Order: sequence, then structure tokens, then C-alpha cells
Amino acid sequence: MNRQVILARRPTGIPAASDFSLAEAPIPDLADGDVLVENHFLSVEPAMRGWLADTSNYSKPINVGEVMRSLATGQVIATRNPGYKIGDFVTGWFGWQDTARVRDEDISRKIGETDLPLSLSLGLLGLNGVTAYLGLTIAGEPRAGDTVVVSTAAGAVGSAVGQIAKILGCRTVGITGSQTKVKICLDEFGYNAAFDYSADDLTACLPPACPAGINVYFDNTAGPISDAVRMNLAVGARIVVCGTASVSAWNPPPQGPRVERDLLTKRARMQGFLAFDHRDKSEAAIAALAAWIREGKLAWREDVLHGLGACPDAIAGLYRGDNLGKRIIRLR
Amino acid sequence: MNRQVILARRPTGIPAASDFSLAEAPIPDLADGDVLVENHFLSVEPAMRGWLADTSNYSKPINVGEVMRSLATGQVIATRNPGYKIGDFVTGWFGWQDTARVRDEDISRKIGETDLPLSLSLGLLGLNGVTAYLGLTIAGEPRAGDTVVVSTAAGAVGSAVGQIAKILGCRTVGITGSQTKVKICLDEFGYNAAFDYSADDLTACLPPACPAGINVYFDNTAGPISDAVRMNLAVGARIVVCGTASVSAWNPPPQGPRVERDLLTKRARMQGFLAFDHRDKSEAAIAALAAWIREGKLAWREDVLHGLGACPDAIAGLYRGDNLGKRIIRLR
Repeated sequence: MNRQVILARRPTGIPAASDFSLAEAPIPDLADGDVLVENHFLSVEPAMRGWLADTSNYSKPINVGEVMRSLATGQVIATRNPGYKIGDFVTGWFGWQDTARVRDEDISRKIGETDLPLSLSLGLLGLNGVTAYLGLTIAGEPRAGDTVVVSTAAGAVGSAVGQIAKILGCRTVGITGSQTKVKICLDEFGYNAAFDYSADDLTACLPPACPAGINVYFDNTAGPISDAVRMNLAVGARIVVCGTASVSAWNPPPQGPRVERDLLTKRARMQGFLAFDHRDKSEAAIAALAAWIREGKLAWREDVLHGLGACPDAIAGLYRGDNLGKRIIRLR
Repeated sequence: MNRQVILARRPTGIPAASDFSLAEAPIPDLADGDVLVENHFLSVEPAMRGWLADTSNYSKPINVGEVMRSLATGQVIATRNPGYKIGDFVTGWFGWQDTARVRDEDISRKIGETDLPLSLSLGLLGLNGVTAYLGLTIAGEPRAGDTVVVSTAAGAVGSAVGQIAKILGCRTVGITGSQTKVKICLDEFGYNAAFDYSADDLTACLPPACPAGINVYFDNTAGPISDAVRMNLAVGARIVVCGTASVSAWNPPPQGPRVERDLLTKRARMQGFLAFDHRDKSEAAIAALAAWIREGKLAWREDVLHGLGACPDAIAGLYRGDNLGKRIIRLR
């Protein structure tokens, strides 16, 4: 039997453990083109909140009764698809379940970096790393000497952004949610400065940390953190809108200071960025990231939960800030 | 004697007539490099509110006791600058006064389009037209077939944006402030559709007028008009933030719905645009605009006030919506 995590009811706001249930289903037979994947690692993303909402989003909402949509990494254990053989490691949209019957369109890639830990395919060498690399370089357009500010600076995307910006010759300033994470930002991810938004007054901390203004803001939070950052933009600043972790519900949209005057006086831009729009560039991004990992230039942190039973509360835990690093669920 | 309009006190919000006073000063002697210009037309801009505010802006605030800063067009009546001869028509930062002693850095250009009306140098062939052309093409990046929405659609900048977008093969939708202006948008400026935000419910009108979503929004207002537009963006939309006419004061910043989710789900961008940053492209913009005017492809409207006495209330009048077309003050 195949154990699965099912959406039991549509969440309002942040998905709670009680919105999911565990179920069992028979392992399905394979048709031509099918691949059977035994999952090793499941991903947990802040973006899952958006995938589960029934309001306008960039992906179709997941329906009640369906297996929770998720990136996962596993090994091919049966195949009727000539592109995959038993034993291949693959990553893709395999869902929160033990075993997935998938087709070409569900498989993101065959994992070639067999010298590196398999779980990286869900983090630095997966959607998080690709989002960081492409979002920063395409929408952020960092130049050497720029000051780059990152929110959720110790998180899976943020920590990659900060380190990539540093490699590209930028000064980096991280904003995170605890003193522990501030220390991680400075010691492990090489930020030039880091602040705890829950304790530090960002409107006071940011100006001395960014004396020439902020050239790039990689925004994973929105909300009051971003309002404080926007007060310190340099002329021509680029804001990469990558996530909105600080906002618990968008319907109705929360109110905040209007941004137009900041954008106009600083000739700045705010741009929404999704890595999904740039699939043609993701292999190049993974190659660059893997090379930096092999050179010891990129650090990462994982927060590993164990077993399908950890899934239901895993998203809520991200929003509580329970994790230090990329949250994944290990199945075997 | 030289009659001048002086800033009498710092406005809070929209500059009122009582913030200015009329004065007389001797016509100054010329030093080497100086040019004496007799003003024919003075410009009135919504942006003057920003120039008069003491909060962060893109230009230095005007000080109390100084002549009001303004673009103007006039004729050289005396010169100790070899670049200019008596009789030349010039446009530049000559201020709200009869006669201005200016230098190279104050003169934007010598007017070459002597076949076209002189006052166009303050409108379609001046900052308004150049802002429309460069803002739309550089920050809006319109493609043939795009739907382009314009706020203050009948105004000096907006009417140029709408017509240029039409010339470039776009569908155009105008938002303006009265039924009279809606009619002008449709009859004179060729918009495919136009709405009166003061009478029409934009959240209901815009979706059927923009069935494939809005690709470019040229925003001169900010505020609730822009909130309604943002609900109808197409994927990859570009918002050109060019003005904030609907917001009466920015200190403290007014509250509105946060924009990040709209930008993220639609991978849209909002970008502040000032023509001043693109001086190297302004002659090319003027050449394109002048050619379209000669071909009869661009219409314009002027709202002409007469004499320096009309200056003090002229900015407030713009914000009251008194004008139909580019507001200028004719001196001779």
C-alpha cells in the first residue's frame, strides 16, 4: 500500500495540521510512459500556502481529497518510460506520499550531481537555489559594490541569495527573525550585517548599515520589514518580490504604506519573480550552484523531519519559524 | 523691472495661491556666458507639488523667497554667450518671471521646430511629451496587441501616452475624471475605451474592457484608481509609475492595499520613471513626436491662462481638475 498525505479541507490563511489527513491507497499499475518513484525526501515550502489557496495564484489550487502537491526526490523502482531506468534518482512533482506514479511532465530532472548529497536537490540545487540564483541575477541585476538586502536571510532562498550576492562582489545585509538566526547569517552565510526584525528597530538599523542606500532588495516577506527597507533605497534600486512570508492572509489584501512615491523618487522598480517562468535557465543555474558548492563557497542548512506523519504540521511550522534552514521530510 | 512669482511659504500638500506672492526686481546685468530670455510661455506641472515639498524628492526643494522654478519658453533678447544669439527661441528652467538671466545649464534646448506652435515646447515637444514617449517605451515596453491603460488619460502626459501606444499597435483604455474628459479621450485621443473614475466603478468596468488583462499601466495617479487597475494585470505586466496625482500628501504616506501579491502572482513590475534620467534620449523622442505631429497622428489640448497673476493658483487648479489639456501661462 502507498501512504499519502491528503488535503482534507481548504485552509484559510496558513495551512494547519488539521487541514490534512493521512490515507492509504494501492500502489497503481503502470501504463506506457509511466515511472514509479519511491520518494526519499519531500519538500516543504512557504509557497505551499499559495498553492493551497483558492484565490488567484500562479498555479492551480490543490483540490480537497487530492495528495498534497510537493516537490520530492526519489529513486525509480519501476518504469515503462524509456527515458528512465530503475535506480535513477529523479526530482519533480511527486507529492507528499511514499510512492508516486509519474510521467515526463511531472519529472523536473534526473539528478546528475551524484557526488553531492541527494537532499540538495530539494534545496540549493532545487527550486530554492534556482529561485535565489535566477531571481537575484535576472530581476535584481546586482553589480559589484552594490548593497543587497535580503529578508528571511537565513532561510532556504534567502541564505542562497546572500551568499550568491557576496560571490558577485556585493555587500550583503540580512534581515531575519531571531538572534540565533542573526548569528547564523553572520557566521555561516557571510552577511556583512544582519538584524533581527523582532528585536531591532529596522528603521534605525538599516541607514547606518546601508550608507549609500540599498541597490537590491530581495524580498521574501513583504509587510513592515519591506516598508523599512523601502525607506532606504538608492536611486535605481531593484526590489525582487519573491515571497510574502510576513502576510498571513491576502483576502482582503492587508493595508500598508503606498509605494509609488518611493519608487518614483528613487526611480526604483519592484518586480514579481517566479523561477517557474525561467525553466530554460535552470540547468545553467544548477551547474553554477554545484560548482560553487564543490569549491566550498556556498553553505546550507537543512531542517530534517522524519516520516509522512511530520507532513501535516510542517507548513505551519515554517510560518512559526520553527526551522533553521531548508525544511525537508526524510522518508528513507 | 522684472516681475516674478516668489515662493512666500512652504506648502503642505497641494500648493495654494496663498503660498506665492508677486514681486518686482531689477533686470540683472549679464556676465560672460549669460543669456537674457524674455519668457513667452510658462509651464504648470503637477510635479511642482513635489518640487515644493521639503521631503525627499528627485530635485532640490525650492526655498522660500526664491522665484518659482518652472520650465518656460522664450526668446533671447540679450546675450554674452556665443551659443545663443538675439532672436533665438529657447526652452529651459527660466522660472515664473517675465525675464530670466540664465546660463548653459539652465537651457534645455534651442527650439528647432519653427514650423510648429511655440507652446508645444512646453507640452508634446517638451517634458510632457518626452516623459510620455520615453516612459512608455523604456519602462512600459509596449508590444503590438498589448492592452495599455493610462490614468489621467486626457492630461498632458496621459493623452500623449495613449496616442503613442495606439501608434505602436496597442489597444488603449483611458481613465479620467469627468464625462467631458471621457468624450475627449474617445473623440480626440483615440482611446478604444475610456472611463470616468468619479462616476464609473472601475472594478466592474475594467475587466470587460481588458479581457486579456492589462499589459501596460501608465500610472499618473496612484491611489484607488491604481488599485482597481492592479486587479486586472496580465502575466508579465509593466506598471510605469510616473505621477501620483490622486494622493494629496505623502507625509505620512497614505495606506492602501499591499501590492506584493499582485506583482508576484502576475510576475509584474512597477517602476518609477523620470524623464530627467534619460536626457541623452530626449532629442530622439522630440524628433519622433514632431514627425507624428506633422503627419497629423498626434492631437493635443492646451489650457492657456494669461499673465503672471494667473500663476499662484495655477497648480491648485490642476489638482482641482480645472484644466482640459496641458496648462500653460502665456505672457506675450
